[in-house]
Amino acid sequence: MTHGKFVVIEGLEGAGKSTAVAAIQALLTQQGIEFINTREPGGTPIAESLRTIVKQGVDGEQVCDSTELLLMYAARAQLVETRIKPALEAGKWVVGDRHDLSSQAYQGGGRELGVDKLNAIKQIAIGDFEPDLTLYLDIEPSLGLSRARSRGELDRIEQQALSFFERSRAVYLEQAESKDNILKIDASQSIEKVAADIHTALNNYLVAL
Amino acid sequence: MTHGKFVVIEGLEGAGKSTAVAAIQALLTQQGIEFINTREPGGTPIAESLRTIVKQGVDGEQVCDSTELLLMYAARAQLVETRIKPALEAGKWVVGDRHDLSSQAYQGGGRELGVDKLNAIKQIAIGDFEPDLTLYLDIEPSLGLSRARSRGELDRIEQQALSFFERSRAVYLEQAESKDNILKIDASQSIEKVAADIHTALNNYLVAL
Ligand SMILES: Nc1ncnc2c1ncn2[C@@H]1O[C@H](COP(=O)(O)OP(=O)(O)OP(=O)(O)O)[C@@H](O)[C@H]1O
Ligand SMILES: Nc1ncnc2c1ncn2[C@@H]1O[C@H](COP(=O)(O)OP(=O)(O)OP(=O)(O)O)[C@@H](O)[C@H]1O
Ligand SMILES: [Mg+2]
Ligand SMILES: [Mg+2]
Repeated sequence: MTHGKFVVIEGLEGAGKSTAVAAIQALLTQQGIEFINTREPGGTPIAESLRTIVKQGVDGEQVCDSTELLLMYAARAQLVETRIKPALEAGKWVVGDRHDLSSQAYQGGGRELGVDKLNAIKQIAIGDFEPDLTLYLDIEPSLGLSRARSRGELDRIEQQALSFFERSRAVYLEQAESKDNILKIDASQSIEKVAADIHTALNNYLVAL
Repeated sequence: MTHGKFVVIEGLEGAGKSTAVAAIQALLTQQGIEFINTREPGGTPIAESLRTIVKQGVDGEQVCDSTELLLMYAARAQLVETRIKPALEAGKWVVGDRHDLSSQAYQGGGRELGVDKLNAIKQIAIGDFEPDLTLYLDIEPSLGLSRARSRGELDRIEQQALSFFERSRAVYLEQAESKDNILKIDASQSIEKVAADIHTALNNYLVAL
């Protein structure tokens, strides 16, 4: 039994990640590839509870920055161990709506928590585990947020200042530049054009396997 | 305004920590010292939610070892930032039912997670913050567990094998040996004798201040 592949969609709020997941699902189904979906933070009962705590707080109390960082990685550790690794080992693909790169961008870039802290905690949580392929949907923060806003109320993270998302985007761009398995896609294009770029990227990846 | 002191009670399940807290409160009240109580994991709405997740899981899912470690430190980061430090800065004392030494004993010793991992995550969560005085209630795991059992059903952590608690105790003993601000108290004695030892230890500390 060959291992499945872990494909992740990344990008700022409203970049179109959830929309892109649908496009990937369509292509994998067409190719007869079995897969599961995950979203982060979340994807298991425990991790979803942690997602709610991070986004909404508890009884009016909001999480501090280091608590947020630790909870993001607690949720990730649980998800990787109980769902992602077992699926990959069973030969299924995993399509992830966000993964570790989001923490590097948001906690590392946005909250400026420092790359050493992030690497230390990542090692504790998931060791050297990483996606096979990441599709990064690049967008101006203001455009993404206006898309997200059209969907409803903004949560605690979505309410950060634009400068927070500018710092996050800088980390995304820098990582996409420096790593071969992170592909940048222009997410300011129409939904159809973004979906077409995703199909092309994924088809190229499948052909090269 | 002088800073308050952070006094922590440590020990295995059923060692008598909650009982000891009452003895400490009585002495501080008698001395006219203002204080707050904390328990770990817990002590804020967010940290108490994390405590419930660690102890009971969610919808039948239990936390993995690295998730447990990250959640313990997430709860601690939140508690130190939002309750312990503000109280100490306001001149109040803090009486803690468990703190970081519990993670060193349980996650480090019991689960054998390794001292480097623990130090890295501690730095992320609370930096160099530490108690002024720790009273460690030393007890045979089997005796402590039989006391805890007499109180009711055992939770997930209390249900670990005895060898888990033997490893935890070894870390407690080693730390109590090597650090001046950790005092060992024989918790196999009667409640009255333990309370008397606690009074003596705390009185000596107060006199030396
Ligand atoms: N390329 C696009 N052009 C215009 N609108 C888009 C595009 N892609 C997605 N949208 C719309 O923008 C909104 C946000 O898209 P989506 O929910 O996919 O983003 P997301 O990245 O998953 O956001 P979040 O980070 O909040 O989960 C949706 O209403 C979606 O229909
Ligand atoms: N010295 C003692 N001798 C006999 N029984 C004791 C003694 N100290 C406490 N107990 C009893 O043992 C039980 C456990 O004590 P306690 O709840 O104080 O322990 P604990 O260390 O707080 O436990 P946990 O780790 O589960 O919170 C209680 O029923 C308590 O009354
Ligand atoms: Mg989405
Ligand atoms: Mg107790």
